[in-house]
Amino acid sequence: MTDHVSPKTITLLGATGSVGESVLSVIAAQPDRFRVHAVVANKSAIKLAKIAIAARASSAVLAEMDELPTLQDALAGTGIHCAAGPEAILEAATWPVDLVVAAIVGAAGIRPTWAALKAGNQIALANKECMVSAGSLFMAEASRQNKPILPMDSEHNAIWQVFDETNKSAIQAVTITASGGPFRTWSQEQIASATPEQALNHPIWDMGSKITIDSASLMNKGLELIEAKYLFGLEVEQLRVLVHPQSIIHGLVHYQDGSVLAQLGCADMRVPVSYCLNWPVRGISPAPKLDFSTISALTFEMPDLDRFPCLGLAYEAMAAGGAATCALNAANEVAVAAFLGGKIPFGGIAHIVDKVLQQTCNETNLAEFDSIDQAVESDRVARDRASQYLVQKQW
Amino acid sequence: MTDHVSPKTITLLGATGSVGESVLSVIAAQPDRFRVHAVVANKSAIKLAKIAIAARASSAVLAEMDELPTLQDALAGTGIHCAAGPEAILEAATWPVDLVVAAIVGAAGIRPTWAALKAGNQIALANKECMVSAGSLFMAEASRQNKPILPMDSEHNAIWQVFDETNKSAIQAVTITASGGPFRTWSQEQIASATPEQALNHPIWDMGSKITIDSASLMNKGLELIEAKYLFGLEVEQLRVLVHPQSIIHGLVHYQDGSVLAQLGCADMRVPVSYCLNWPVRGISPAPKLDFSTISALTFEMPDLDRFPCLGLAYEAMAAGGAATCALNAANEVAVAAFLGGKIPFGGIAHIVDKVLQQTCNETNLAEFDSIDQAVESDRVARDRASQYLVQKQW
Repeated sequence: MTDHVSPKTITLLGATGSVGESVLSVIAAQPDRFRVHAVVANKSAIKLAKIAIAARASSAVLAEMDELPTLQDALAGTGIHCAAGPEAILEAATWPVDLVVAAIVGAAGIRPTWAALKAGNQIALANKECMVSAGSLFMAEASRQNKPILPMDSEHNAIWQVFDETNKSAIQAVTITASGGPFRTWSQEQIASATPEQALNHPIWDMGSKITIDSASLMNKGLELIEAKYLFGLEVEQLRVLVHPQSIIHGLVHYQDGSVLAQLGCADMRVPVSYCLNWPVRGISPAPKLDFSTISALTFEMPDLDRFPCLGLAYEAMAAGGAATCALNAANEVAVAAFLGGKIPFGGIAHIVDKVLQQTCNETNLAEFDSIDQAVESDRVARDRASQYLVQKQW
Repeated sequence: MTDHVSPKTITLLGATGSVGESVLSVIAAQPDRFRVHAVVANKSAIKLAKIAIAARASSAVLAEMDELPTLQDALAGTGIHCAAGPEAILEAATWPVDLVVAAIVGAAGIRPTWAALKAGNQIALANKECMVSAGSLFMAEASRQNKPILPMDSEHNAIWQVFDETNKSAIQAVTITASGGPFRTWSQEQIASATPEQALNHPIWDMGSKITIDSASLMNKGLELIEAKYLFGLEVEQLRVLVHPQSIIHGLVHYQDGSVLAQLGCADMRVPVSYCLNWPVRGISPAPKLDFSTISALTFEMPDLDRFPCLGLAYEAMAAGGAATCALNAANEVAVAAFLGGKIPFGGIAHIVDKVLQQTCNETNLAEFDSIDQAVESDRVARDRASQYLVQKQW
């Protein structure tokens, strides 16, 4: 492919994670189209150094100050600029590039993504927490900058690909699909006492452990609904989840004229990643192509809110507002960590989240946040509350 | 819905057929958005008069001169203008309107549609023969007029909805789905001796008898591939058929980045009709909405060219060029009529088409046509050849 445009410059926040890996794979498949500016990670200095060298990045930045010497050693003589610490990450996010991929996992991704956006960089968003904890703020700033946020999550990316913004009033609903996770066919009692090993055994997607647990509880879909609400400016009533165990259809948009548009593809993050990186044109991706001769059937089930209460809690939080979704997410992070640490049963996750959510709805101003500081503080309060319930063994 | 734009004026060629009925139903559901100018039909004077009155049309035009007095009687006192005869139809097609719906069945639709296009009217195309017999001419004229032809067939409409014209080089292939028709699971021998009653028993779509027979032989899909080739400017290698018995997914576009976009909906012509009539905005349609809680599974099978040779013949004709596809279609119309008339077995349809196609490839200039007259003449020659084989009982 000949391409006479200059390469797109990219900063990758979260370079050592599973989304980061997909991003680097897509970039490597179109070396003329992209140039990696900075790669940013939490603490894996050696891994980050290898990535920086392979991607010919200009800079490598770590969150962990202690790891800086290791990073510097590993990059000695390469000419790649090294830095570390939270401030260094925020600074890296503001360096002017064509696209910042926000793929840091969890609430840690909020401030760097915000810094990138405020600096006028376009964001490809793979971090859920920005939308779940501060969706209104991010969308308002993106709109002010006239730099739409590009959804990189497979489900939101799917919806984006078939979402006709110019005919938005004709959109009746959007559907996010769910594989159903490892407990799709389990009873309520079996799920309540599931072990971390069982919950980590995801049938389709290979992801980080936090997200895999969220897939088992369907909290993942709850968070994605909240994300979709902000990303696409939808009402709660327009947001649907459909269990689709084969994970071939990733998202659907229902139009009032009876058409339903969908994006299908192999369950491979490199497909949505390629779409985001190349947008507004389309490029290639190293992902395998969908082969209909190998698909026996696509099946669908309605989600069961009794067996998967986290999904119902997400709807509840979404209806209540930004502080509630922020608390939902924060409490869930704490509860999932406790579950993975063997401190609470699987069923305890929903109980902790429920308690924090009710407390938030009773005690907190539920208006949308005015600042990222407020969002981060609200996140902290909800974490504290969740930790309290853990200490008190209330699950 | 408040709507401050003036209503779209529409001429409906083929008002008494099954597509015409869907068009009138969609128009009736959005009475403020559309105004019917002329309704045109072959010979059902009473039915056409009723339609003209119900749709508040300005004119009603029949092909059959003999039926004019009946039409005039039925419309006496309504102020609706009446006319009849082939010239009257061509004239009606040229009256300036916002959209001419070309829904006359068969080769009879070619000249009126051409007249409408030449006069500068935008065409919503539900007639296959215009593309199959003279696709190059129609596309060139539409391009010259800068009035894109709007595909109304459910499969082409589906593809159109997810076909990114601005990223056309990123399109790898398009897939047209097929229900598989009544003989999907039949053996080659059973199919060869199928009766008209068996062939007319279509599992999904309620259509005219010619099209239903074509669905049973898969010639319908062959003709749709040829249409798609011209409508979307694709290569033969980019055109695929997928058997999908539930007829929920109507068409798919495969992008080189691994995304496959699809349009889904109930098998109801009012969905694509609404899309065409309202384009470039979206309206509503009286068609039922797709309900995923009622879908047990979507399944797929590769088409079997041994049992359905007509599909292979269509690929062959498409590769050969415009005169070949014109001959394929003409021979098929003659053969299907003979089958419906009890003169030949079902298996004879493919044999007649094959013979005419080979004769055309051997004896005819296969270049694309220079004029509609050439296309119509080529169609006539192929019909004569098909009739000869019938007379000689060569099937």
